[in-house]
Amino acid sequence: MIKLLVAGTVAYDSIETPFGKVKNVLGGSALHFTNAASFFTDVGIVATVGKDFKLDDIAFLKERNVDMTGLEVDEKGKTFRWEGKYNYDLNQAITLKTELNVIENFKPKVPETFRNTEFLFLANIDPELQAHVISQVNTPATIVLDTMNFWIESKFDHLMNVIEKVHMLIINEGELREITKEHNLVKGARKLIARGPSCVVVKRGEYGVFMMNEEELFLAPAFPLEDVFDPTGAGDTFAGGFMGYLANVGDAGVETIKQAIVMGTVMASFNVEDFSINRIRKLGYEEIRERYSAFKGCMQFGECNL
Amino acid sequence: MIKLLVAGTVAYDSIETPFGKVKNVLGGSALHFTNAASFFTDVGIVATVGKDFKLDDIAFLKERNVDMTGLEVDEKGKTFRWEGKYNYDLNQAITLKTELNVIENFKPKVPETFRNTEFLFLANIDPELQAHVISQVNTPATIVLDTMNFWIESKFDHLMNVIEKVHMLIINEGELREITKEHNLVKGARKLIARGPSCVVVKRGEYGVFMMNEEELFLAPAFPLEDVFDPTGAGDTFAGGFMGYLANVGDAGVETIKQAIVMGTVMASFNVEDFSINRIRKLGYEEIRERYSAFKGCMQFGECNL
Repeated sequence: MIKLLVAGTVAYDSIETPFGKVKNVLGGSALHFTNAASFFTDVGIVATVGKDFKLDDIAFLKERNVDMTGLEVDEKGKTFRWEGKYNYDLNQAITLKTELNVIENFKPKVPETFRNTEFLFLANIDPELQAHVISQVNTPATIVLDTMNFWIESKFDHLMNVIEKVHMLIINEGELREITKEHNLVKGARKLIARGPSCVVVKRGEYGVFMMNEEELFLAPAFPLEDVFDPTGAGDTFAGGFMGYLANVGDAGVETIKQAIVMGTVMASFNVEDFSINRIRKLGYEEIRERYSAFKGCMQFGECNL
Repeated sequence: MIKLLVAGTVAYDSIETPFGKVKNVLGGSALHFTNAASFFTDVGIVATVGKDFKLDDIAFLKERNVDMTGLEVDEKGKTFRWEGKYNYDLNQAITLKTELNVIENFKPKVPETFRNTEFLFLANIDPELQAHVISQVNTPATIVLDTMNFWIESKFDHLMNVIEKVHMLIINEGELREITKEHNLVKGARKLIARGPSCVVVKRGEYGVFMMNEEELFLAPAFPLEDVFDPTGAGDTFAGGFMGYLANVGDAGVETIKQAIVMGTVMASFNVEDFSINRIRKLGYEEIRERYSAFKGCMQFGECNL
């Protein structure tokens, strides 16, 4: 029985960074998410791939109790492909090519056995599809939503309708500003909270994470890495660590959310150390615990001596 | 007897932000620095103003034990003036006009009574003048240096000579990258440490502060404010809170440095709430202590539950 469900994409990515270049490697929001989350809990995945997809390449996820029942193979098309590059400012991805392929006809179907999931992550897909996923899940799952500028610009009303139905948002700083038309994060987060979600988690790339709920603020810097290799999937890996941790603890109270943000940050920091899902795939629990502690150490300071 | 000496500028600023506009208000690195630092320790100021400067406007600093012996009134010129504006991205100042005036002939002279200071802050002035200030101070003062892109580009060798003589740097993220030609902060900070300073404090605007010494990293986000009014002087106010705190405690060990970074962040967060030195001027100790605690609260989270 899964505890955490993700609906999103599985893709083949071609990526160029200042440090290297790869073609047709495993990617996509649902895959990066699951790769991270499966360290913490039993994950079910709802996504689609084409007939060209090599299922063997993700068979290792089954050993980590990932349930692939919801991974649909669309025999009529090819797997979603994304091609992008980064210059030295690794915060900014430059999309070179997007081939939607099977995503164009994707109509996410949540398997019966997934419908009582406790946690649901709606990765960045069409808000109408996100709403369709929600409609198939039995309440009261804790629902977390991601999105992107494309949907904010092309399907704003649909997006706002979904936002009203979810408990948390995990979005980028720029997306928060675009949705709320507020430059200031505190004001923007407050506007979103007024629309329904009880908590907004704002990703700020190499600058860390800002969290706000009705009563509290929480701030976590990013883990300062010396060698950032490829940031692709960092946001979804963050979400995977975050929600995997929530599902592991089994609650979404504010203290768990804070720890989950740090765990998401830790997982994202591993993800960027290699291309694709390679670094997380090889990860051990000891490394995860160590980096969590190291990170906590970087943020500790004494009481005011005044 | 002063414990903390600052050499820098006292200026009249004209500033436009999306929230208002002021003309010829008190500004300058040494003034913002002193305004903040004087809450914590006895400060001496080395700077120059013109015959048009109204000394009465800063007389309130004497009540906070600021020693003005080193403030030279140059009867032959006018006070340094800066005119700038900010758009909604308050991280980026746009300089409209700079009138150096008396700064052009400024040759900082450290009064006898200042020479045994325990802490010295070299605000952003010509690195040759910074070296001249150092030469007048008796070792072993703890020396901290700030600079800006203008000097990095026009007097790089002089700047590197001063950097070799100081204990700490407080610089912007962009300046660190420009000096070290390293995009990565960890690598950049390590390069600077190899040249002499034992500690590098990197200001990242609304994203907070990154500190590195030979053994440790420390990360502090900025205090998330709802109403940022005018960021002018935030960096110098940070430095003032930082060094005032060090001088107050009387050491520059790493645990004190961490607390001092938070105190600098707290003071900078007040500074941006109003134009010029207005907000800090009216500040009370209770507000300072409260915000320090609130900030600490925003960064606290539990051990990993895994």
